[in-house]
Amino acid sequence: MNDEQQFCPVYQSINLLQEKWVLHIIRTLLEEPRGFNELSRAVGGCNPATLAQRLDRLEEMGLVKKTVHSVMPPRTTYQLTPAGRDLQGVIDAIDRWARQHLNIPVKAASPR
Amino acid sequence: MNDEQQFCPVYQSINLLQEKWVLHIIRTLLEEPRGFNELSRAVGGCNPATLAQRLDRLEEMGLVKKTVHSVMPPRTTYQLTPAGRDLQGVIDAIDRWARQHLNIPVKAASPR
Repeated sequence: MNDEQQFCPVYQSINLLQEKWVLHIIRTLLEEPRGFNELSRAVGGCNPATLAQRLDRLEEMGLVKKTVHSVMPPRTTYQLTPAGRDLQGVIDAIDRWARQHLNIPVKAASPR
Repeated sequence: MNDEQQFCPVYQSINLLQEKWVLHIIRTLLEEPRGFNELSRAVGGCNPATLAQRLDRLEEMGLVKKTVHSVMPPRTTYQLTPAGRDLQGVIDAIDRWARQHLNIPVKAASPR
């Protein structure tokens, strides 16, 4: 990484968004706040240790807020902050691209 | 991964875009076609084996086109296909978000 990359907001944002599961977590939390287990099921296949690490990182970056509810048994929910919700634009752009180019992998794998 | 995820174009697109270096490669090739070494330098820090694997995957998905030029020494360039260039919308959305929220990680890391 050179100096330009180190101080480039786009380069740094890509570094965050390319961390495995981060985009899936953001997309899921854009729907509604979730508990840890719900989130784990919704993103599909992320192991709990990795999910916890990603959520800590997103919380530290100010994109996710963790709330511990005083109930028995204790319940923790995760929701996006305003900065996290602003990633809706990125997910929407992926959505548009995906719907337009859905057929690419299927075509590539079809019998000749 | 459940059935819904397996057949969801957005889920599958996120799976591709979260592969480390893929977004950096796309962003770099949106500027102009590049040779392998140029691309390696431009994305910053990706080892050659990983870069080659990612380029193969992007080519297989129809997002990148590889051209071998008949010159001495032989030269290979990589460029985006129309489907690959359509990812401009995703990079633009990341760009907008990044410029708006640039200060988040800096704030989080500043001395108290």
